[in-house]
Amino acid sequence: MTLGEYLEKQRSAIDAELDRLTPTADERPQTLHRAMRHSLMAGGKRLRPILFCAASEAVGRTAGALTPACALEFIHTYSLIHDDLPALDNDDFRRGQPTCHKTFGEATAILAGDALLTRAFQVLAEAEHVHAAVQIAMISELATSAGTVDGMIGGQMEDLEAEGRPVDSERLHYIHRSKTGALIRAAVRLGGMFGEASSEELDRLSDYGSAIGTAFQIVDDILDVEGTTESLGKTAGKDAQQQKATYPALYGLEHSKELAAKQLSLALAAVATFGEAGDRLRGIAETIVSRSA
Amino acid sequence: MTLGEYLEKQRSAIDAELDRLTPTADERPQTLHRAMRHSLMAGGKRLRPILFCAASEAVGRTAGALTPACALEFIHTYSLIHDDLPALDNDDFRRGQPTCHKTFGEATAILAGDALLTRAFQVLAEAEHVHAAVQIAMISELATSAGTVDGMIGGQMEDLEAEGRPVDSERLHYIHRSKTGALIRAAVRLGGMFGEASSEELDRLSDYGSAIGTAFQIVDDILDVEGTTESLGKTAGKDAQQQKATYPALYGLEHSKELAAKQLSLALAAVATFGEAGDRLRGIAETIVSRSA
Repeated sequence: MTLGEYLEKQRSAIDAELDRLTPTADERPQTLHRAMRHSLMAGGKRLRPILFCAASEAVGRTAGALTPACALEFIHTYSLIHDDLPALDNDDFRRGQPTCHKTFGEATAILAGDALLTRAFQVLAEAEHVHAAVQIAMISELATSAGTVDGMIGGQMEDLEAEGRPVDSERLHYIHRSKTGALIRAAVRLGGMFGEASSEELDRLSDYGSAIGTAFQIVDDILDVEGTTESLGKTAGKDAQQQKATYPALYGLEHSKELAAKQLSLALAAVATFGEAGDRLRGIAETIVSRSA
Repeated sequence: MTLGEYLEKQRSAIDAELDRLTPTADERPQTLHRAMRHSLMAGGKRLRPILFCAASEAVGRTAGALTPACALEFIHTYSLIHDDLPALDNDDFRRGQPTCHKTFGEATAILAGDALLTRAFQVLAEAEHVHAAVQIAMISELATSAGTVDGMIGGQMEDLEAEGRPVDSERLHYIHRSKTGALIRAAVRLGGMFGEASSEELDRLSDYGSAIGTAFQIVDDILDVEGTTESLGKTAGKDAQQQKATYPALYGLEHSKELAAKQLSLALAAVATFGEAGDRLRGIAETIVSRSA
């Protein structure tokens, strides 16, 4: 199976699992469930759950990862819904369609985000075929990576506060490491934990996760400059317009591309010793850096 | 120790524990942590964590409950912050002071709510001296009671959709059971689970929790009619103004009071067999029905 075929197979399996794990519009409150599904089933890349599954495979566990992997997509989707709200980034398009609040109104979008965030922890707590102690460690790590201080919400808050102000590299790195990097790194680490990685394997997965998390955000910043609204499925050029802290703003486009390539080398080196079992992780890292959307 | 002294002692212990469990404004992002603390440390009744501790005591466990009990207050406070937002109930005052978004702006209030919700699960996952399997069951139940379908977010969504429409008793009961009742019942049940209640004890705690949850919401509805903004610490008369589904709107004030008294009897009967260990639960039930704020 080529990497492209593997990613397509995983994406489709994750879509089906997300569908199974999300309440339907047949159940009350219908509008809320439609709003959750609107954002969740809009066809994202499913990068985070795919990373979870690939990390679990890399340490030798090939079965049962789909359900807990979906917790990462619930968190990611909730964060997109809340970030897109008028009070935050005020975005009208996401994944190529109108954002949740544009379609369902702000109140429903806020509650749909809350429900997806809550559902993430429920899904992890209800995962099967995993030791309770491992499950607890996974829940704790997911909450830390999605939370404040060095987690996703912390990064989002600092990002908002940095708008329109001079960017320094220390703050830029904090924002990107927390806002995007923490959850991507957690996706890799949680997959490893689920696969009962040794502590040395988990260290290597952490290094890999940190590197691809940084690479992902650098490429995201570059695409916001070079991509189009059509190719991205979200409004291009928003960062410059909102004077966001970005890699191109601080380092220029060319040097930003070198920095992304550097992170890719670090990621590949981190999982070199996994041999063939790490092929998917290496392929995903390359895809992240070469992506155009 | 009288019930009043007990409640005061518990409130003060919970305040100290919430303080310990919440990041400070010394840590980045400072504004977010100030916003979380603004709403969290504004001096609520701490009913839900007190119920957690009292239920644990009722089944014989008197130590260690404070930390996991605080998870309930994190959830409750996040729900108040998000419910008060302009897009939802648009409230300016809560717990006698300006609401989170009035003080810190909408973006920060949304993120502060998200951070408190996330922190609730982190706190449960990091609780000590509890079997991992029990911990998992507690996390699962907290997520269910705070989530959509029959949980808090489901009730809040239906409540919003019911505004200005004719109320029927089936919908009113769904809204109140989900919006307020589910988390109160979960507070009692989680305390019981933490105290390693037998399945029969847990059934009795569930009945008690359902009854006081309903009683709490009936009294809340009555106070919105009879109380003042000053005594309540939040804007009085909002329900009628927003044409909310309430017990007084459907049953009238007098019959609503009878219904609250009926729920109190059910609650007292449910925990009768706990004997002296259930004294605090019985006292709290009476306090809920006789409260004036």
